[in-house]
Amino acid sequence: MHLWLRLPLEKSEPMDDDLDNKVKNNNQTSEIVDSWELWNSFRLLCDHSSQLCVALDISSTLPSINSLGRWFGEPVRAAILQTNAFLTNAKGYPCLSKRHQKLLTAFFNHSIQAIISGRSNHKVSPVPEGVLSGDENYIEDAPVRHALSPYLDYVAYLYQRMDPLPEQERFEINYRDFLQSPLQPLMDNLEAQTYETFEKDVVKYTQYQRAVAKALVDRVPDDAVSTTRTVLMVVGAGRGPLVRASLQAAEETGRKLKVYAVEKNPNAVITLHSLIKLEGWESLVTVISSDMRCWDAPEKADILVSELLGSFGDNELSPECLDGAQRFLKPDGISIPSSYTSFIQPITASKLHNDIKAHKDIAHFETAYVVKLHRIATLAPTQQVFTFTHPNFSANASNQRYTKLQFEMLPDMGSCLVHGFAGYFDSVLYKDVHLGIEPNTATPNMFSWFPIFFPLRKPIYVPDGSPIEVHFWRCCAPTKVWYEWAVTTPTPSPIHNSNGRSYWVGL
Amino acid sequence: MHLWLRLPLEKSEPMDDDLDNKVKNNNQTSEIVDSWELWNSFRLLCDHSSQLCVALDISSTLPSINSLGRWFGEPVRAAILQTNAFLTNAKGYPCLSKRHQKLLTAFFNHSIQAIISGRSNHKVSPVPEGVLSGDENYIEDAPVRHALSPYLDYVAYLYQRMDPLPEQERFEINYRDFLQSPLQPLMDNLEAQTYETFEKDVVKYTQYQRAVAKALVDRVPDDAVSTTRTVLMVVGAGRGPLVRASLQAAEETGRKLKVYAVEKNPNAVITLHSLIKLEGWESLVTVISSDMRCWDAPEKADILVSELLGSFGDNELSPECLDGAQRFLKPDGISIPSSYTSFIQPITASKLHNDIKAHKDIAHFETAYVVKLHRIATLAPTQQVFTFTHPNFSANASNQRYTKLQFEMLPDMGSCLVHGFAGYFDSVLYKDVHLGIEPNTATPNMFSWFPIFFPLRKPIYVPDGSPIEVHFWRCCAPTKVWYEWAVTTPTPSPIHNSNGRSYWVGL
Repeated sequence: MHLWLRLPLEKSEPMDDDLDNKVKNNNQTSEIVDSWELWNSFRLLCDHSSQLCVALDISSTLPSINSLGRWFGEPVRAAILQTNAFLTNAKGYPCLSKRHQKLLTAFFNHSIQAIISGRSNHKVSPVPEGVLSGDENYIEDAPVRHALSPYLDYVAYLYQRMDPLPEQERFEINYRDFLQSPLQPLMDNLEAQTYETFEKDVVKYTQYQRAVAKALVDRVPDDAVSTTRTVLMVVGAGRGPLVRASLQAAEETGRKLKVYAVEKNPNAVITLHSLIKLEGWESLVTVISSDMRCWDAPEKADILVSELLGSFGDNELSPECLDGAQRFLKPDGISIPSSYTSFIQPITASKLHNDIKAHKDIAHFETAYVVKLHRIATLAPTQQVFTFTHPNFSANASNQRYTKLQFEMLPDMGSCLVHGFAGYFDSVLYKDVHLGIEPNTATPNMFSWFPIFFPLRKPIYVPDGSPIEVHFWRCCAPTKVWYEWAVTTPTPSPIHNSNGRSYWVGL
Repeated sequence: MHLWLRLPLEKSEPMDDDLDNKVKNNNQTSEIVDSWELWNSFRLLCDHSSQLCVALDISSTLPSINSLGRWFGEPVRAAILQTNAFLTNAKGYPCLSKRHQKLLTAFFNHSIQAIISGRSNHKVSPVPEGVLSGDENYIEDAPVRHALSPYLDYVAYLYQRMDPLPEQERFEINYRDFLQSPLQPLMDNLEAQTYETFEKDVVKYTQYQRAVAKALVDRVPDDAVSTTRTVLMVVGAGRGPLVRASLQAAEETGRKLKVYAVEKNPNAVITLHSLIKLEGWESLVTVISSDMRCWDAPEKADILVSELLGSFGDNELSPECLDGAQRFLKPDGISIPSSYTSFIQPITASKLHNDIKAHKDIAHFETAYVVKLHRIATLAPTQQVFTFTHPNFSANASNQRYTKLQFEMLPDMGSCLVHGFAGYFDSVLYKDVHLGIEPNTATPNMFSWFPIFFPLRKPIYVPDGSPIEVHFWRCCAPTKVWYEWAVTTPTPSPIHNSNGRSYWVGL
């Protein structure tokens, strides 16, 4: 059984019938109520019950965009369009304001159903051609069109007018808001299927090719092209896509290349050998079946190419791997990527919270998940968390990190509830060639990474005007790396995942 | 392993060494810090770990009494008395201000150990007679008295000067902060041992005797004494103490009495019969072995005497029992008690919280406990919750109740953490004769009731200046009665024990 709470969307004065008691008790005769606050109080009293949903009454006035935005992280099931929310077009038919149209489109994108309610204020449009001609029982009790038909027609028109989903979105639709445990690429070998999926990400390899090309041009002046052979090592070569991108960059720039392809997964190595034979690269590429952290290279590299990034940048332990691999990079050698930075932002995500809560333990609330975020509300702009730069030859370099961030919430939004933090990364491959999923700078049409989600055991209410302060730690031990996180403002949370008790990445 | 956090007791400016980072990060060069806030943030970050304790540094200035009071609900293990906290008496020896003395005595009462720390600012007192004379190794490395001995002597003197615990407190010492499930007197029969303990509560029965005496005098004018026989029914007679009190009241006032003693517990009835025989009350007392809710009385009573009260007044279902019993009360008859009221107040009680948390389930956080509250801090004055009046012949009387209470916290206290609510009752037996455990009006030297404690699943932080708003429901179903409770200000809690899922009293 689900319970839908019907609430006005706008910030409004309390209505006589449903808020009478509240007003009387407080001796207040007029008060602007943010309906999200009502929802939030009710939801908290019900201990975040997953059976509790929302139906929003939409009238002619709408609150600010940021205030509206909060609802996209909540279990809104229906938008009840009041007929008096409609305007009248030149022909006398109902229509909606641009802002209402945009809102409704966003609702459709979030599978929120539209319900039309109220008295008809508009004439009934003529029966559309064909609808009733052949089948007079089409609307059984209504041989004459229903009084609300014009509104329905208009809403249906808005729905049909929506842009079709881009191919990538269609592909990802089944992953929306589905929590996945991050990969453990060092401890586990990837499946062939996983390689195959990732290898299809053309955009990603194009960016790598551009980066390698730029590095080759910088490394080898035009007048030295014929006499210089650049040593390039691909560490974590998988089934060869970065080898291909590197060779294409060499061809494109006319630079000579000697490639070492280092890969620890023996299954991938077999496929890699076949590829090299097939492509006739035997003289160019040497395959090394070894973990980059223990391989003894016969010579030093000019360029080290790797793609060991997770959704949060360093979370698949790229820093630890490259620390091992940079031993065989020349002192003036280039690492591609040359740096990567993680980002977070606070979000409302009641669906994710409930899915995690269903496990009924603390450990699942102390785990980061890879997830195609969809039914969420972002509550503040992203901020940088950790940055790693390669190569890093400094003597006392550590991959431990600590950052404290303070987020100012979006303006005119009102109070909100933070269920956790969405995480992203951006990586500088080489100079101006970057790659990433940080929303403001995300590389378009790339599908290798979904965001990461760091949940909070107890969602935190952030009153209007208050910032939220969060602490992130990256901790390292001999056999594992993990994150800890805690909120301290407006109210302290427990430190999540202390000592990596619930979630870690094995070395 | 336990970790003691050493904190200054006073609200103070941050010290250079331990708060340096905080100050620098906030770009604040001077800031008054309430050390309780530091403790609270740390404790929340550590998720209320029961291994976390406090050692308080006591210097020459003390914060307000209410600010100090909060620490008595926290796991304070030691008070570190700085030598500069001491004054100098007329003879040149160290002593403490009255406020310091009072604080130290309170610490001793809470088993908090005193530690003396700092440079000696006072002369070393002469060796007390006898201490070193016979045993020169008494202080092995100090044939001369230790420089801090004068302070120690003074603290020992304060300890020895303390009033001895009253007998009742000594009796109850082992019950301090020990959570007990409330009795289920309707579903279960009490043990003989339980009767014996409660029967020793002389004060309680004296109050009942006074109430019955007053009622008899009101009921039977002096000129009707010889012709009138008052019918008095004791419902829930147990092993007879209320029968005895009633008969003594009759004797004292010279009124004639006919007593029915109704008791459902067959074991108690046997003892009751013996008592009546022993005392020669056969002509005065009729024993009825029956549940008052189903007994068919042969005549109606002038006075109905009962003692069915729990720590929270109505929580042992006195209202439901007396609803059944008032059938055989005359329309103008008197019920003793004539009313009772429950009270609550918010408290800090980290020890109780941790004991409940150790069960690792929600149900134990949704249960009310009978507990001799000791290591707690009361945070606001008590307020009334529910009142029941007897007899209640109104047609649509219900024993369901709902109350919303708003507590203003004690002045000058600062912020605090509420672990739950302490509950009490006060009962009007008859007119000005009352009985109860509500702290401001508690009947002295009565030991039948400890307070009740309603915990909160998640302790609630109440910022300085904010009230706390709490809702209490008394809910009734055909076979059980239960309470639900929830906080809505400053932040909403879940509704505790909804539908009586975790805790109820059976009918």
